Amino acid sequence: MQVNGRAYRTIWFEDASETVGIIDQTKLPHEFVTVFLRTLDDAANAISAMLVRGAPLIGASAAWGVYLAMKEDASDKALENALVVLLATRPTAVNLQWALEQVRGALFTQSPNTRVETAKELAEKICNDDVKMCQAIGKSGVGLIRDKWKETGKTRAINIMTHCNAGWLATVDWGTATAPIYTAHEEGIPVHVWVDETRPRNQGASLTAWELCGHGINHTLIADNAGGHLMKTGQVDILITGTDRTAANGDVANKIGTYLKALAAFDNNIPFFVGLPGSTIDWSCDDGTKIPIEERGAEEVLQLRGRTPAGNIETISIAPEGSTAANPAFDVTPARLVTGLITERGICEASNDGLTSLYPEKK
Amino acid sequence: MQVNGRAYRTIWFEDASETVGIIDQTKLPHEFVTVFLRTLDDAANAISAMLVRGAPLIGASAAWGVYLAMKEDASDKALENALVVLLATRPTAVNLQWALEQVRGALFTQSPNTRVETAKELAEKICNDDVKMCQAIGKSGVGLIRDKWKETGKTRAINIMTHCNAGWLATVDWGTATAPIYTAHEEGIPVHVWVDETRPRNQGASLTAWELCGHGINHTLIADNAGGHLMKTGQVDILITGTDRTAANGDVANKIGTYLKALAAFDNNIPFFVGLPGSTIDWSCDDGTKIPIEERGAEEVLQLRGRTPAGNIETISIAPEGSTAANPAFDVTPARLVTGLITERGICEASNDGLTSLYPEKK
Repeated sequence: MQVNGRAYRTIWFEDASETVGIIDQTKLPHEFVTVFLRTLDDAANAISAMLVRGAPLIGASAAWGVYLAMKEDASDKALENALVVLLATRPTAVNLQWALEQVRGALFTQSPNTRVETAKELAEKICNDDVKMCQAIGKSGVGLIRDKWKETGKTRAINIMTHCNAGWLATVDWGTATAPIYTAHEEGIPVHVWVDETRPRNQGASLTAWELCGHGINHTLIADNAGGHLMKTGQVDILITGTDRTAANGDVANKIGTYLKALAAFDNNIPFFVGLPGSTIDWSCDDGTKIPIEERGAEEVLQLRGRTPAGNIETISIAPEGSTAANPAFDVTPARLVTGLITERGICEASNDGLTSLYPEKK
Repeated sequence: MQVNGRAYRTIWFEDASETVGIIDQTKLPHEFVTVFLRTLDDAANAISAMLVRGAPLIGASAAWGVYLAMKEDASDKALENALVVLLATRPTAVNLQWALEQVRGALFTQSPNTRVETAKELAEKICNDDVKMCQAIGKSGVGLIRDKWKETGKTRAINIMTHCNAGWLATVDWGTATAPIYTAHEEGIPVHVWVDETRPRNQGASLTAWELCGHGINHTLIADNAGGHLMKTGQVDILITGTDRTAANGDVANKIGTYLKALAAFDNNIPFFVGLPGSTIDWSCDDGTKIPIEERGAEEVLQLRGRTPAGNIETISIAPEGSTAANPAFDVTPARLVTGLITERGICEASNDGLTSLYPEKK
């Protein structure tokens, strides 16, 4: 998508220098800094220090990391080492494991002298496939926004609410929840996005707001508390969020707070949709209540990072010194509150029947 | 309540110096600073600069402001001036108007030479009446917590969730939503409070957490997003919030985000109670949807204040420079989601019948 009038992906190959370009997302939203990865360690560090984040982008970065490793040393030993190093960067990231399995399968059967080229082709393919996947989610979902627009007689912008960042910054391009929004924008449908701040890590305020800014999409930041009121007073037409994991019954685990928004959407008869690639469906999990919820560090709640008036990035404490905090990172929204799932294969009901109608091979 | 092992009210008379002591709440939670008001201007400034806040405390501060004015000059002209100056500090605060009307009625009928003493007595009475009112709310509500404790066989602490600050810092002592909690604590019932951060102004993180800390009440700070998950996973026994205005049908207007918590409580069959003095019932408002919602400045969402590691208080920006924000300060929770209202006269259903059963004079 656009940044300062130029089209970017979150990760790309630089032909001239044979390096891999990324956006340092830890600097957002205050500074737009691109970084060039030259070595395996650069790539591993970019993942573990969260310069890149978001499941699809982590997978793509790991694939490029193997390419950078092979460029230096394409031996079996170096390949095995690269896989171990990269896997250790974010041990719980499913997409990371998936991408590295792809790479392992393709490279170990080859002789070292073709591995660099193959690793590069594979990383490019993983990136391009992700872009196509997200574009397909956009095509699946744009009709929902278009229909709303027609309902208004094309008289006003459609108000879409989202939570956290399931935007292009979390993928290679387009995003999942945001893909229908960007697609609507391309079609000339006027949209306005309500962006939840998404405490405690503020992905909405720092990433979603920034990427919508860059692409010129009209949006307004709100405290996470405000969504219910906006829905109740008729200021929201549709909600679209992402998901980290979808159970086979259509329950969705997503960033903490999603469940509260789904409740308010349901209470106000506003459609609540979830954008996802089929790869996030966990067919072995028959019920969302079985999804384990990560408890993250208390300091994410007790502190906040931002820019001072002098332009420095500071971390400030917001609570009294004697207080502790709890920090569940995700919650589960039951399928009964989800109007539908927007996938690369179309839209379905949030249910086992709905999902298997789109993915019959999983029946 | 207790601060550093000593009992405090939020406002008190200092006999020796004939000044009025307050806690500078703008310094919380990072510093506990008491300030002594000597003049009308000191009192007016304390209200307008929000050193004191919360409807009951603002009313009490204004009454003490008139006393300080009379001490300097007890003439009709000075009295009229004091009322004008104090009323202008927070023009929309209903309790401020109410307290000043009380004072006007009592003082204008008197000769200047008794006004100082009468103003002092009146300010003391307003403070003491508020304390009695809050204690009565505590007595009305403590049974709810006691019953929950008995249900558990007295085996564990009762988990209470609250939103914003309807604590003793907003009143003269005890608070409204917190009164049943402090009363349970005095009775020896073990309690644990989930404290919502309450973005954008963070009254939960900076005021509620601080006052619970000071009084030695077990509590945990959470992001506003976390409440739904905690309720869904059985970690909350009861919710108690305050209200800024209660409609005659039992709808409650309270800090933005309250509605989302009420939805989650309802969805998980957890009791959602609202603590309030009868004075916050707006009998002329038959339906909460008619309550106007204040839209506050965008900077409250775009920025946050806290303490840097070096110990300085800084305001930081959290959003990209091109983003704007919306900031509705309150939302309305419909009576259907409210299990009951805890008042100084007892607990009632959130309905017109419920309210008039406790306040039959309003029928």
